[in-house]
Amino acid sequence: MPITPDQQAEIDAQRSEAHQTLRATSPGMEKHLYQAHEVLDHGLIRVIDYMGDDNAITQAARVSYGKGTKKVSNDTGLIRYLMRHWHSTPFEMCEVKFHVKLPVFVARQWIRHRTANVNEYSARYSILDREFYIPEPDQLAAQSTINNQGRGETLEGKEAQAVLDMLRDDATRSYDHYEEMLSDDGKKGLARELARMNLPANVYTQWYWKVDLHNLFHFLRLRADAHAQYEIRVYAEKMCEITADWVPAAYGAFEDYRLGGANLSAKGIDAIKRMIKGEDMDAEKAGMSAGEWRELLGVLG
Amino acid sequence: MPITPDQQAEIDAQRSEAHQTLRATSPGMEKHLYQAHEVLDHGLIRVIDYMGDDNAITQAARVSYGKGTKKVSNDTGLIRYLMRHWHSTPFEMCEVKFHVKLPVFVARQWIRHRTANVNEYSARYSILDREFYIPEPDQLAAQSTINNQGRGETLEGKEAQAVLDMLRDDATRSYDHYEEMLSDDGKKGLARELARMNLPANVYTQWYWKVDLHNLFHFLRLRADAHAQYEIRVYAEKMCEITADWVPAAYGAFEDYRLGGANLSAKGIDAIKRMIKGEDMDAEKAGMSAGEWRELLGVLG
Amino acid sequence: MPITPDQQAEIDAQRSEAHQTLRATSPGMEKHLYQAHEVLDHGLIRVIDYMGDDNAITQAARVSYGKGTKKVSNDTGLIRYLMRHWHSTPFEMCEVKFHVKLPVFVARQWIRHRTANVNEYSARYSILDREFYIPEPDQLAAQSTINNQGRGETLEGKEAQAVLDMLRDDATRSYDHYEEMLSDDGKKGLARELARMNLPANVYTQWYWKVDLHNLFHFLRLRADAHAQYEIRVYAEKMCEITADWVPAAYGAFEDYRLGGANLSAKGIDAIKRMIKGEDMDAEKAGMSAGEWRELLGVLG
Amino acid sequence: MPITPDQQAEIDAQRSEAHQTLRATSPGMEKHLYQAHEVLDHGLIRVIDYMGDDNAITQAARVSYGKGTKKVSNDTGLIRYLMRHWHSTPFEMCEVKFHVKLPVFVARQWIRHRTANVNEYSARYSILDREFYIPEPDQLAAQSTINNQGRGETLEGKEAQAVLDMLRDDATRSYDHYEEMLSDDGKKGLARELARMNLPANVYTQWYWKVDLHNLFHFLRLRADAHAQYEIRVYAEKMCEITADWVPAAYGAFEDYRLGGANLSAKGIDAIKRMIKGEDMDAEKAGMSAGEWRELLGVLG
Repeated sequence: MPITPDQQAEIDAQRSEAHQTLRATSPGMEKHLYQAHEVLDHGLIRVIDYMGDDNAITQAARVSYGKGTKKVSNDTGLIRYLMRHWHSTPFEMCEVKFHVKLPVFVARQWIRHRTANVNEYSARYSILDREFYIPEPDQLAAQSTINNQGRGETLEGKEAQAVLDMLRDDATRSYDHYEEMLSDDGKKGLARELARMNLPANVYTQWYWKVDLHNLFHFLRLRADAHAQYEIRVYAEKMCEITADWVPAAYGAFEDYRLGGANLSAKGIDAIKRMIKGEDMDAEKAGMSAGEWRELLGVLG
Repeated sequence: MPITPDQQAEIDAQRSEAHQTLRATSPGMEKHLYQAHEVLDHGLIRVIDYMGDDNAITQAARVSYGKGTKKVSNDTGLIRYLMRHWHSTPFEMCEVKFHVKLPVFVARQWIRHRTANVNEYSARYSILDREFYIPEPDQLAAQSTINNQGRGETLEGKEAQAVLDMLRDDATRSYDHYEEMLSDDGKKGLARELARMNLPANVYTQWYWKVDLHNLFHFLRLRADAHAQYEIRVYAEKMCEITADWVPAAYGAFEDYRLGGANLSAKGIDAIKRMIKGEDMDAEKAGMSAGEWRELLGVLG
Repeated sequence: MPITPDQQAEIDAQRSEAHQTLRATSPGMEKHLYQAHEVLDHGLIRVIDYMGDDNAITQAARVSYGKGTKKVSNDTGLIRYLMRHWHSTPFEMCEVKFHVKLPVFVARQWIRHRTANVNEYSARYSILDREFYIPEPDQLAAQSTINNQGRGETLEGKEAQAVLDMLRDDATRSYDHYEEMLSDDGKKGLARELARMNLPANVYTQWYWKVDLHNLFHFLRLRADAHAQYEIRVYAEKMCEITADWVPAAYGAFEDYRLGGANLSAKGIDAIKRMIKGEDMDAEKAGMSAGEWRELLGVLG
Repeated sequence: MPITPDQQAEIDAQRSEAHQTLRATSPGMEKHLYQAHEVLDHGLIRVIDYMGDDNAITQAARVSYGKGTKKVSNDTGLIRYLMRHWHSTPFEMCEVKFHVKLPVFVARQWIRHRTANVNEYSARYSILDREFYIPEPDQLAAQSTINNQGRGETLEGKEAQAVLDMLRDDATRSYDHYEEMLSDDGKKGLARELARMNLPANVYTQWYWKVDLHNLFHFLRLRADAHAQYEIRVYAEKMCEITADWVPAAYGAFEDYRLGGANLSAKGIDAIKRMIKGEDMDAEKAGMSAGEWRELLGVLG
């Protein structure tokens, strides 16, 4: 359980202090502020701050487009128009800051999204806690035999048990040794910046991560996708829920055009036109590789 | 006068609606929200939204540094430490959104700062207003004779009058023709995206500009500097005042370490060491070009 | 004619000095180096330098994917796979630097793409040349009556002539006055940073623009599109040709998946599925606005 | 030894194929191309490609400043001027691509520099090699007692031996188990994306890292600094040597103004002025904290 009573008391204290502001507020987001959403076995995600709401998007678009935009009669329609036509700058007018606790191997994927602001807990400066991600048995998946980057069936029985034992034992031993190296009880004690190298990639770290809504959507499109690794997807899915509460119109457009949408190639469009006309298509007729054709059928499936 | 009674009424309406929020608020910044600060003859700058306060900076730093930071006994000290050691990420945790009305030639300089979000009024989509920047007589400066990128003495008498007349007449005529080209009264009317090309660089545009505090400081260091062009500097100076009200501790550190500070080269440090020892230095002894030496004396002057 | 004999001589000199290098070279790009491609009436675009070729993309991807990528038997297939699945980082491994001469109103659109490096000719420091964009008669388009951001029919007869006269006369007079203000013949002479404000948006500027291939493709997708303004599209189209010569496999994938492709919403996919099954669809059945439906038919048209 | 004979043969092959190019070349950099510079016990850094040379910097600056720059009579002087006045865009015109093999905990620090392009070997897709960083005995430093983020004395005797044993044993065991989990010999075999979580932070990864010269200098200023962790500093120092060969004039200016230079606060400048006048200063008179005063003395020491 990631949240200790002390931490919960601190969250409650933060939530008890309401302030007056003249800024735009999002009632759906105020509900989430500071609250710890538990993710994985020791992870969490919390909203620490936010800027803007659905209205901030249309307000920015109306600066861009002046009086002309009155033709789009309502805000939801305008937001859908902006999303459909890849007008990204109005979505950049909203900003959100999360506090995230996550395993290091997830953090390493996450950080590849560069257009965000990050403050990570420093294991050079401070000592990490004894917390490691150990998958639930139903997430102990075999290597996919058809996709180098995917999971296949779930491990079972002795094999599953052996994996869990190795993960737990190695993490425990590594952390014991980490503490032993650091200890200056009767000895000098290794520098933190060196001792940390003994910790495995399932140790938990934490950070503040701040991003604008356009780049958050980009992150969510890739990481809430079925092809994303489960351990980052669960964070992305939680952020989807939060974002839906924060900016419902923008999230609705994102869901329709990005999460639920698809990109077709020129060849894909051509194939579809012929299918609509009743032609019986296959990969060869479409001029596609087997992979491309399978993916197109997946979209139409 | 840039603010019409209608606009002021709209601002008053925005300022009359207070909301409850659990987010951090900055009382100094709430005062500024939506208020129009007049800049130049028709320009303005307004705070539309903000995220975070001084405390958000130390909070982010404390995630980075964990318990270790308790050694820095107070927040101001920690903020000064972060600024001194170029720890930029905690300052990125604060964000601000401005509405700015500014001449196009100022906008062209401003936009070179790429790490910001921008929504500009589109002259492709909409029609620009008849508003042009005409300098005050005391800003009608001659080309500097020693600096290609600077101003010298102020123009006077007939020369000044001739310049003002040309600026006003050309702007007026260009705008008259802009309207005439656009007009579809008895004719087709030129496309807006083409007609705009007739407008001079002193026409006013406007945009929403959103930036994090670290990048704002970077902008202010360059644009509130004495070497910046006057017409952008007046915007930067107004933003300095606003930022001082928003995050007083961070702004204080910025003022001491950046605005009032200086970068010395290895040669400059060496020269200073010798001056402290009582040596009588000059450019040659310091191994500096005339320009470098003059700049060093400027720092020590 | 944008290229003077002196400039051509300089280009010829640059092209006459071949060097030995161990770096990857692209024969298709070597042909373009330094050559001036004329665009609009006084504009040009030249390749000044480049880094990488098609092979640099797959090389980077193979670092990412190690031995696993051997399954994709050839480079073109791998490049198509990367493009289809939005793996953008391998495309970032190629870089190109252009020298571009373009009207200021085009530069203002162009610069909104922030992920690039830019050095623009400074009208604060130097004096701009007397060169202005005046559209060809067949580009003198009326405002579109259905799209705020588009062009309609071509102006004709007296209206066209009046527009051309105004553009030419205003540009000439503004430039005459620019020179007069700058002149220090018997007077002080206005500072360049001020005098430039009298120049209209069709004056030509120039810059060095350096960008990686991923961001170049993003730029081209938006600016070589039929909805982009003609005056920027002609630059984008020229860059498409150059890029096709530089990295033919990557450009081929870009053409198929981006330029010729389309994004469908969840609603769009659903509508297509029903059309393939033979259902007779319309906007209402698809749950789409009139605009969305029109756009979907455009894709399938 | 990080370079196997096979790898060396591949490097030799790459170095044996010279091409003709019309691009700018840097003879100092050609020497480095593809060569493996060994760093730490199994790490390496190699230049894979580059764009531009010292001349590309002044060429870009001269586009910005036009004819005016002729006043700075030579290129080195212009480059020094640009560096001194924080004109960063001309330095962005050069680009370099490195292949780096480095421990994961070093990679995690490195990646915080966001303005670069990265392709990392994917442990989700492929299997990492059995290579771990084990410090040399003289780098086995104790935690600093005065600086949370630093190293103190070197560990000795039994304590040092115990640390080395733990690092080696834990890495070996973790990797044995990693292989065991992955193995599908008589069982399913855990997915690579999961098995990797058992590997410690001293395992080696590798990536292609591409960056422009301005951002490289920013990286080097922070990471070649005496306060940087030794394990990243050795990479930065090697890159300093390479960069000095690539762009000698720019590197010289960087060395003088950044690496060897210092930032003084307004208070620091004031204290120095008084010291030059012969006043005997201390922290209190300077209005500085003990830390600031110590740092100022460090600059002047």
